[in-house]
Amino acid sequence: MKELINDAEHVIFDSLKGVAAAHPDTQRVDLDNRIVYRAQPPRPGKVGLVSGGGSGHEPLHSGYVGAGMLDAACCGEVFTSPVPDQISAATNAVNTGAGVLHIVKNYTGDVMNFDMAAELSAAEGVEVATVLVNDDVAVQDSLYTAGRRGVGLTVFVEKIVGAAAEQGRELGALKELGDRIVANGRSFGIAITPCTTPAAGKPSFELAEDEMELGIGIHGEPGRERVKLGPASDVAHQLVEPVLADLDFTGAPVIAMLNGMGATPLIELYLLYGEVAPLLASNGVDVARHLVGNYITALDMGGASLTLLRADDELLDLWDAPVNTPGLRWGC
Amino acid sequence: MKELINDAEHVIFDSLKGVAAAHPDTQRVDLDNRIVYRAQPPRPGKVGLVSGGGSGHEPLHSGYVGAGMLDAACCGEVFTSPVPDQISAATNAVNTGAGVLHIVKNYTGDVMNFDMAAELSAAEGVEVATVLVNDDVAVQDSLYTAGRRGVGLTVFVEKIVGAAAEQGRELGALKELGDRIVANGRSFGIAITPCTTPAAGKPSFELAEDEMELGIGIHGEPGRERVKLGPASDVAHQLVEPVLADLDFTGAPVIAMLNGMGATPLIELYLLYGEVAPLLASNGVDVARHLVGNYITALDMGGASLTLLRADDELLDLWDAPVNTPGLRWGC
Repeated sequence: MKELINDAEHVIFDSLKGVAAAHPDTQRVDLDNRIVYRAQPPRPGKVGLVSGGGSGHEPLHSGYVGAGMLDAACCGEVFTSPVPDQISAATNAVNTGAGVLHIVKNYTGDVMNFDMAAELSAAEGVEVATVLVNDDVAVQDSLYTAGRRGVGLTVFVEKIVGAAAEQGRELGALKELGDRIVANGRSFGIAITPCTTPAAGKPSFELAEDEMELGIGIHGEPGRERVKLGPASDVAHQLVEPVLADLDFTGAPVIAMLNGMGATPLIELYLLYGEVAPLLASNGVDVARHLVGNYITALDMGGASLTLLRADDELLDLWDAPVNTPGLRWGC
Repeated sequence: MKELINDAEHVIFDSLKGVAAAHPDTQRVDLDNRIVYRAQPPRPGKVGLVSGGGSGHEPLHSGYVGAGMLDAACCGEVFTSPVPDQISAATNAVNTGAGVLHIVKNYTGDVMNFDMAAELSAAEGVEVATVLVNDDVAVQDSLYTAGRRGVGLTVFVEKIVGAAAEQGRELGALKELGDRIVANGRSFGIAITPCTTPAAGKPSFELAEDEMELGIGIHGEPGRERVKLGPASDVAHQLVEPVLADLDFTGAPVIAMLNGMGATPLIELYLLYGEVAPLLASNGVDVARHLVGNYITALDMGGASLTLLRADDELLDLWDAPVNTPGLRWGC
């Protein structure tokens, strides 16, 4: 498999050099620790927001560091959790005395390492709370997960809680808000082609020319089943139905994201959304905000995921609040 | 090759349905004519900006319709020019009496059809001027082009001239500005994997597992030569050197874009920019603005292109001006 890299050992370091070069005005990169910070330190009294995880899902998480979202992102190796010392360093650096919220996708390694980091920082007097994101309805337990995996809803948690943190809300309130988003959001993904990690150099799994995987994870880990790849109108049903079966999305404004897994052209993603949107409407789902694009990827995987959040006026206001990050930008 | 479509015949229509569903607040889609307009009609006295071309390069052009950029984009079939009647309809629709500027990538079909559309609209009393973008230094004449191809600089022309049009500048001044951008911008692209059009259903060309194509076009048309794919540090030289050899980029602030061709993961694109940026600096190029991401793609092609614009304070101010489109958004 072909890649634009120097060598597989240094992909994260080398990539973060590019992040630093591309965003000098808004981001600061601690290359040694693989941490991306905002260029400006947090305002005193603001709760710090730290996320992170395995790399390979860009723009998540480093692309969401900036005004209105994260204060820091800890970048692990590809598909591998960041380590406790790294996370604790980021946590301590963005603490202004108001505490720090960790936003963690539910994978065993991430949960363990963020927990250890929270303990390390607590020992240094930093108050830490955690929001655990586990929105993927596809499977209960998986290759790297006990319980449900954390996927697309993470973008929503980072955006909405990020806006609330800018307003000066305190740590406990931000954790509650994050938990409320997790309780009201669900995702489901499909893949039509696999991804290739730089270290492996070959596709992480195989799919026949006429197959797709339903319920794929963002590391290529298995989903529910393999089926024949049909037209996009069928794929829309296969994405929408498991999400709607898991939570009632009627009777409230909904924020919807159709996310590309990496290699799917935007023309196909829009085409799929052209099937998804009327299907949601016919099921009584009132989509108030739409996001179509690559927001949480799996390297060069071909496919898409759907994330829905049952919102309300408060969540919509926070969603609409200004955000200025490489991955998500509006209002400023 | 696998695609998320219904059938190859209706890809553009189906995809534009998704655009309409995703951007109801900012865009309006004329599905019959395959034209994307701003949701709000142009302010009286503002010059209309119309672009378009073959589809498959998204977000170009439909993703650049909105405040601060285009008033309308005409979507052709995949890699096929829009037709004169379609372009003329868009032109007439956005004319408020101040005339309309066509921004055209230099491909034979586009040039011919935009010319015919300009004549059709002129016959109805609409004043039309044209900026022809031909920034690709790779080849003189190509599969679909007499002269140089128009590629990444088109994004810059649409952004900068779009900002100037919002300021109320008149048609002649906007054409001059567009021509000045074209005179001062250059691009060069490479591919490591081919693209597949829905109609063909198979890759547009073949590249051996260890090969890359230097000077690739955005339709997969041939470049300068095929070489062994080396590390990203070599690829950076192969991107930067032909651009710098063609125009002096020293002694002025430069706007740089490292653009992904579609299937290249963001982590690799940043990694490549981490090699490109210091190489530009060591050649005396002062990059004042950086853009890294997918802005003009070639469906699912793997690869990247570099675009540089020799700017000045006026061009930087127009670049920084607010823009609110699905593909490019800041300041509003």
